[in-house]
Amino acid sequence: MKKTILPVAAIAALITACEQPSQPSGETRSPERAAYSLAIHGGAGTILRAEMSPEKEAAYRAALDTALNIGETVLRDGGTALDAVEQTISWLEDCPLFNAGKGAVFTHEGKNELDASIMDGRGQQAGAVGGVTNVRHPIRLARAVMERSPHVFLSGRGAEQFAGENGLEIVDPKWFFTQNRWESLQKALQQEAGQNNKHGQLKLPDHNPDHKFGTVGCVALDREGHFAAGTSTGGMTNKKWNRIGDSPVIGAGTYADDAACAVSCTGHGEFFIRYAVAHDVWALMMYKGLSLADAADLVINKKLVEKGGQGGLIAVDKDGHIAMPFNSEGMYRGFAKPGERKIMIFREQ
Amino acid sequence: MKKTILPVAAIAALITACEQPSQPSGETRSPERAAYSLAIHGGAGTILRAEMSPEKEAAYRAALDTALNIGETVLRDGGTALDAVEQTISWLEDCPLFNAGKGAVFTHEGKNELDASIMDGRGQQAGAVGGVTNVRHPIRLARAVMERSPHVFLSGRGAEQFAGENGLEIVDPKWFFTQNRWESLQKALQQEAGQNNKHGQLKLPDHNPDHKFGTVGCVALDREGHFAAGTSTGGMTNKKWNRIGDSPVIGAGTYADDAACAVSCTGHGEFFIRYAVAHDVWALMMYKGLSLADAADLVINKKLVEKGGQGGLIAVDKDGHIAMPFNSEGMYRGFAKPGERKIMIFREQ
Repeated sequence: MKKTILPVAAIAALITACEQPSQPSGETRSPERAAYSLAIHGGAGTILRAEMSPEKEAAYRAALDTALNIGETVLRDGGTALDAVEQTISWLEDCPLFNAGKGAVFTHEGKNELDASIMDGRGQQAGAVGGVTNVRHPIRLARAVMERSPHVFLSGRGAEQFAGENGLEIVDPKWFFTQNRWESLQKALQQEAGQNNKHGQLKLPDHNPDHKFGTVGCVALDREGHFAAGTSTGGMTNKKWNRIGDSPVIGAGTYADDAACAVSCTGHGEFFIRYAVAHDVWALMMYKGLSLADAADLVINKKLVEKGGQGGLIAVDKDGHIAMPFNSEGMYRGFAKPGERKIMIFREQ
Repeated sequence: MKKTILPVAAIAALITACEQPSQPSGETRSPERAAYSLAIHGGAGTILRAEMSPEKEAAYRAALDTALNIGETVLRDGGTALDAVEQTISWLEDCPLFNAGKGAVFTHEGKNELDASIMDGRGQQAGAVGGVTNVRHPIRLARAVMERSPHVFLSGRGAEQFAGENGLEIVDPKWFFTQNRWESLQKALQQEAGQNNKHGQLKLPDHNPDHKFGTVGCVALDREGHFAAGTSTGGMTNKKWNRIGDSPVIGAGTYADDAACAVSCTGHGEFFIRYAVAHDVWALMMYKGLSLADAADLVINKKLVEKGGQGGLIAVDKDGHIAMPFNSEGMYRGFAKPGERKIMIFREQ
C-alpha cells in the first residue's frame, strides 16, 4: 500500500472530477420496489486502516458511492443488468483512483495495457479485450466485441482497430497517465534492479501488494431477472511480455448465467485463471447446490487460500443476494438494492 | 471440407516429412505394463467419408499414428505426462496436415497467428500464448511461460520477445505457410466480398466448416498418476482483429487437475469460451460425481448441441479411461495405452 497522503483539496478535486449527478438517496431505499441488485469492487489487496488517511478513505467511499448511483439508477428505472454493468464500469474506468482506464498501472515498458470483459447472463454471450492502449472505455469495447463481432476475445492492435471501426472513443495513450501509478512503476523497477543485482536473474517483485490489485468490477441483477458481470483492469504494475490477466478471461475473472449467478473477480490473476474462479463459483451452485454465499466463500477463503492465491470477488444470485468475499486485508466494495446500500473497504466494518 | 485431392506422391512425401522413427507396435500392446494413457486430436469438423480420398485418409491416419508413437514412447519409458503432451503436440505443430504451427490457417490479413496452452495436473500450473507469429512450437512457448515466467498468459509481440529471451526456436513467419490454407483464405475472402456486396455489412462467413477447425491437442496420464493437457491452433481462417480463440484460454480449451482429469478441446472456440467447456467437464466430475465419459458426453453432445456450438474434446481420467466425444461429422483422433491403440476420423468406426 502506498503511503502517499494526498492533500484534502486534491482529494476534493478528484472526487469532483469523477462525480456525476447522484440521485436522491431516499430513492434507493424503498422496500416495496421490485427486486434488483448491484455490487461493485475497486480491487482487493493490502488495504490497511492504519495506512489509510481519512481523506483518502473519503475519496474512495465517495467514488464507490457515485459508481453505485450510476448502476442503481439504470436498474431502478428498469434498465438492463448489461447497461448497468457497462455504465458503472465506464465511470470507474474514468476515475483515477482505480486501476482501470485512467489510473491504470504501468507495464515494464511504461505503457498502460488494458484488459476487460463483459458477460450477459441472458444467452451467455460474452466479449473480452486484452492489451488495448488507446480505448478510453475498455468495458464498452468488450461489449462491442460481444454484440458486433463474431468473436468473443480480441487483443492488442486488432482490438484497437475494431474499436476504431465501431466508433468507440479513442484517446491518446497519455490519457491513462497518473503520477501515482508512474511512481509505483519506478519503485518496482528499482526493486527489480536490486533483486537482479543480488540474484543475477530476472524476477518480478512478489511482495509489493500494490503491483497486482485495483481492478474494477460490477455484477447486476435487473428487474427482468437477468444477470450481467463485467471486469476491467490495467493488470499488474511492471507486467511484461503483453501479459494477459484473468479480467478478460471468461470463466476466470468474469462469468454470468441467468441460471445461477454473475461473478466478477479481482486479485492475483494467474491464480484466478488456473482455478477458473468465476466459473468455479457458478459450478458449485449448479452442480453441488451450494448457496451463492457458500460457493463464493469456499472458492475465495478455502480453495484459493490453500493455493496461496490472493484476491476476492463480488457476486449476485437470482434472489439478489450479494456475496463479496476476499482473502486479502481489504477490498474496495459496495452494493445497492431497494432499501439497502453499503460501502466497505476493510475487513471489519 | 475442401475437396482437394492431393496426389499420392505428395501424400507420401508429406508423411515422410512429418515422420519420426516409430517404435515397434508390439511394444505398445503389452497388457502387463503399468498404466499410462494418451489421447490426441487433430481437430473436429465437417469431415465426411464421402469427401475423403483413400490417400488423404491414409495420410491423416499415418500422422496420428506417428504422433501417438511419440507420446507413448515418453509415457512407456516413465516420462511425465507434461513431456508427452509437449513432444506430441510439437510434432503435430510441424505436420502441415493440421491447423497448428506449420499448416496453420491464415488471418484476414494473410498472416498466421498461433495460440496454444498447456496445463500440468500436478499443482495445476498453466501457461498460454495468444497471437504469436514467429515461434515454431507455440506449445513449447506455453510451457516456457508456465515454468519460467511469473505469468500464465502472454500475447503477441510480448510473447515473442519472451520466446526470444528464453531460447525458443524463432522462425521466419513464412515457415507456417501452406498452399492449402492460403487457398482457403482466398475462398473465404471471396465469399466475404460476395456477402458484403449483398448486405453492405462486414460479416464473417459462417458456413464454411473449414474456417473453424483443425486445432491439435493431447492429454496424458503418466505412470506416476499425473495429468497434463495441451492445445495448439492457428485459430479460424479469415479471423480478424487479433482474435483469440479457446485454445489458449485455460478452462475453455485446456484443463488438467490430478484430482479429476485432463481435457483438450477443438471446435468453434467462441462457444468453448462462453461455456468454459474444459473446466465444465472437470466440474461435472468433481461436483456431480459423473464419470469422465458421462461428463464429456453431457457437455459436448447435450449442452453444446443445444447452444449450437460445434466441436469435440479428448479427455482422460485417473484410471486411464479415454473420452473423445464430438458433435460434428468427424474428429481426427486417437488414443494409446498399454495393449490398446485406436485411430479414428469419422463418426462410425
